[in-house]
Amino acid sequence: MLPTEVSTYLQGNREKHLAELFELLRIPSVANRKDDACNRAADWLANRLSMLGFHCRLPDAPGRPNVLAEKHVADDAPTVLIYGHYDVQPAEPLELWQSAPFEPEVRDGWIYARGANDDKGQLYAHIMAVEAWMHTAGLPVNVKFFIEGEEEIGSPHVDAFLAMHAAALAADTCLVSDSAFFADGLPSITTALRGLVECELTVTGPSCDLHSGLYGGAVANPINALARLVAAMHADVGRVTLPGFYDDVAEPDEAERRAWAELPLDEPLQARAIGLDALAGGERGRPLLERLWARPTLDANGIVGGYTEQGAKTIIPARASAKLSMRLVANQQPAKIVKALRMFVTDHTPPGVTARVDVRAAAPPVQARTDGPAMDAATAALAEAFGREAVLIRCGASVPVTEVIQRRLGVDPVMMGFGLPDDRLHSPNERFALKQLHGGAHASAAFLRRFACRFADSH
Amino acid sequence: MLPTEVSTYLQGNREKHLAELFELLRIPSVANRKDDACNRAADWLANRLSMLGFHCRLPDAPGRPNVLAEKHVADDAPTVLIYGHYDVQPAEPLELWQSAPFEPEVRDGWIYARGANDDKGQLYAHIMAVEAWMHTAGLPVNVKFFIEGEEEIGSPHVDAFLAMHAAALAADTCLVSDSAFFADGLPSITTALRGLVECELTVTGPSCDLHSGLYGGAVANPINALARLVAAMHADVGRVTLPGFYDDVAEPDEAERRAWAELPLDEPLQARAIGLDALAGGERGRPLLERLWARPTLDANGIVGGYTEQGAKTIIPARASAKLSMRLVANQQPAKIVKALRMFVTDHTPPGVTARVDVRAAAPPVQARTDGPAMDAATAALAEAFGREAVLIRCGASVPVTEVIQRRLGVDPVMMGFGLPDDRLHSPNERFALKQLHGGAHASAAFLRRFACRFADSH
Repeated sequence: MLPTEVSTYLQGNREKHLAELFELLRIPSVANRKDDACNRAADWLANRLSMLGFHCRLPDAPGRPNVLAEKHVADDAPTVLIYGHYDVQPAEPLELWQSAPFEPEVRDGWIYARGANDDKGQLYAHIMAVEAWMHTAGLPVNVKFFIEGEEEIGSPHVDAFLAMHAAALAADTCLVSDSAFFADGLPSITTALRGLVECELTVTGPSCDLHSGLYGGAVANPINALARLVAAMHADVGRVTLPGFYDDVAEPDEAERRAWAELPLDEPLQARAIGLDALAGGERGRPLLERLWARPTLDANGIVGGYTEQGAKTIIPARASAKLSMRLVANQQPAKIVKALRMFVTDHTPPGVTARVDVRAAAPPVQARTDGPAMDAATAALAEAFGREAVLIRCGASVPVTEVIQRRLGVDPVMMGFGLPDDRLHSPNERFALKQLHGGAHASAAFLRRFACRFADSH
Repeated sequence: MLPTEVSTYLQGNREKHLAELFELLRIPSVANRKDDACNRAADWLANRLSMLGFHCRLPDAPGRPNVLAEKHVADDAPTVLIYGHYDVQPAEPLELWQSAPFEPEVRDGWIYARGANDDKGQLYAHIMAVEAWMHTAGLPVNVKFFIEGEEEIGSPHVDAFLAMHAAALAADTCLVSDSAFFADGLPSITTALRGLVECELTVTGPSCDLHSGLYGGAVANPINALARLVAAMHADVGRVTLPGFYDDVAEPDEAERRAWAELPLDEPLQARAIGLDALAGGERGRPLLERLWARPTLDANGIVGGYTEQGAKTIIPARASAKLSMRLVANQQPAKIVKALRMFVTDHTPPGVTARVDVRAAAPPVQARTDGPAMDAATAALAEAFGREAVLIRCGASVPVTEVIQRRLGVDPVMMGFGLPDDRLHSPNERFALKQLHGGAHASAAFLRRFACRFADSH
């Protein structure tokens, strides 16, 4: 259990902490904007952590500033790295917000603001926890912060940055709070994320748009050909047909399957929430969570070709293209999958057109260890803070930084998120429950102490 | 042979006629513009024909004015209806024109202007011919003109108009000069046009765009489903798979096949002209002209769905749609084909999405008789004017008015076009060869006389 003085401190400073978080939320640090708001958010955080006694730096590097902060308490104590990001998604469309996105307010126990959850609120829970220790019993571990400013635009510089600053960021574990509970009241640790390959498939035919009457039947149609290629990438049963696509896929073990089957999941309700009768996508014969968490997918994200305005224009277009994304799972390798895609396209391009694949981004899947001192500490800390044993879940999305942390720093991220499923990330009226902010701060504080003990036990 | 006085008149009035045609070409009667240029073109034509002695009317009707003109010479003479249109395609992009589109000029024996060929120039050849007869020996037949102003926007009002004015336009044959020679020096009569069904196929999935990481594998993707539907509409060999699609298709007879095989056609050259190695579209095992002229097709003219801007956005889109056009041949019926398409879409829509077909336009194919007095007269007139026997060809495109003329007026259109294959219709630097204008006037004049004789012989 957390020492009383620490939990009392957290309890007693709720208003102060909320006021501080509001200051941070008022800075419109939208990642894709060119103003100085991101610099101001980074400065605010560096200043905040400096006043706590952290040694802070904003190293020169391409892109938005990264905040590095360190508090060393003892050479024989383990080091906990805490990751977060201060950049947020754009708030538009503004007219759908009930209160202004950068004027945070509390309504019915929820903080409403862009970034309230993602990720300023979740990050702030850790700052609150660290402060509580520092103003009372003192930190039980060495703490480092790595706070990024480009997560929402795909962390384009994080790999180079971590390669450069790996030594400064060396740690025994890394907490990442940028995820959510599986359900309200059910604390969860995310142990795997899917990887991602993004590419564009372009089919080119004649050198210009042609009259479909004068050329229809003579010239292969790039849209028809593209449709044929995209369609051929799936078999009837929802399986991806790229050769070798499933070769390296690690099946979840029986214990995981059993655990997932027990999670509270109302499929018809989820389907209705997005206007569907059923969640009918993906491979047939596999349960929903397995399809989402443990199976790779191939989705077209966009397609365009020929005449797309109102009315008709009877042409055979010169070209058509589709944006495709593949979500990968352990142990698929992006390079191998890209190769399979290229080969498939070459083999399936009909005569009379040419096809080309441009890869835009590739991130490997992440699978973190599900045992060890950090996982034990996180599970226990969540149970202590939220009164219920944490479940291990996965996430179908990709958070590129987690793979970089794993690869560059050699530590598995502990994805202990405090969000709730309906927090409207990236959407109007983003929110974060006060109970999650306070519970998160409690869990973070508990984690630091428990990790110190477990780490000592295991070394 | 044409009486010498008629051919001498044509010969002697070339400069006057060109100056008059230039007046008409200077009126920017773009069909889709809202200014008064179309009215001015209609007035100019009515005035021109009135001065010749025609009784002219511009009946009140929805849309751009139609010019009706009639010159009755004898109750026992047959009546020739001449169709043309004064509206033109937009001239944009203007910067690609070597001379201004509505400032006609002659360069190297070609008239350059928007409408020089399509259809002001071809129409004017008939006016020249009629004038030559009227100023010399007198017209050998009764002549009516029906000059439309909405051909380039799909003749939306022509069916209702001809239904209303069928009696006034009653004739024994109808000349339509809105087509081209198969090759320079090879006069041609077009005997069939393909029909057209235009529709939009929309596939709808979730009620909003979804995160492809959080939903990929759970939700059927409307783009993937649309690709699957469009792809399924063709078999590998280029055949359309809609049930019954080919049931009513009339095969060309052996004589036609032999004649088409003898036409001068350089496939590799044609392919290179549009940036292709080969003309590889359509059904395998059938020659190019058969695929273009006598076989139906299904082409996607446009497709759009999901994210189509620069870069990536990893979504599963809420919807995707494709514009499809089918070119039909005799004796396919648009209504039957639409029904087959709807049934096919219903049968092939994958689970988890809904699909819907909206029909935008439907025009039946046209097949005109290839014998009879009008065809004989046209063949002989072209031979007389251009020194070579005319060939019978078809055209893969659709000219909706021809089917309406056939159905509403009960006469088969004689599609005696004077254009050349590279006249750049609808494109910058549209042109019309002076020799085609003069040859066309000669052919028109010769037709009127020859038709008078043949018609008398056959009645």
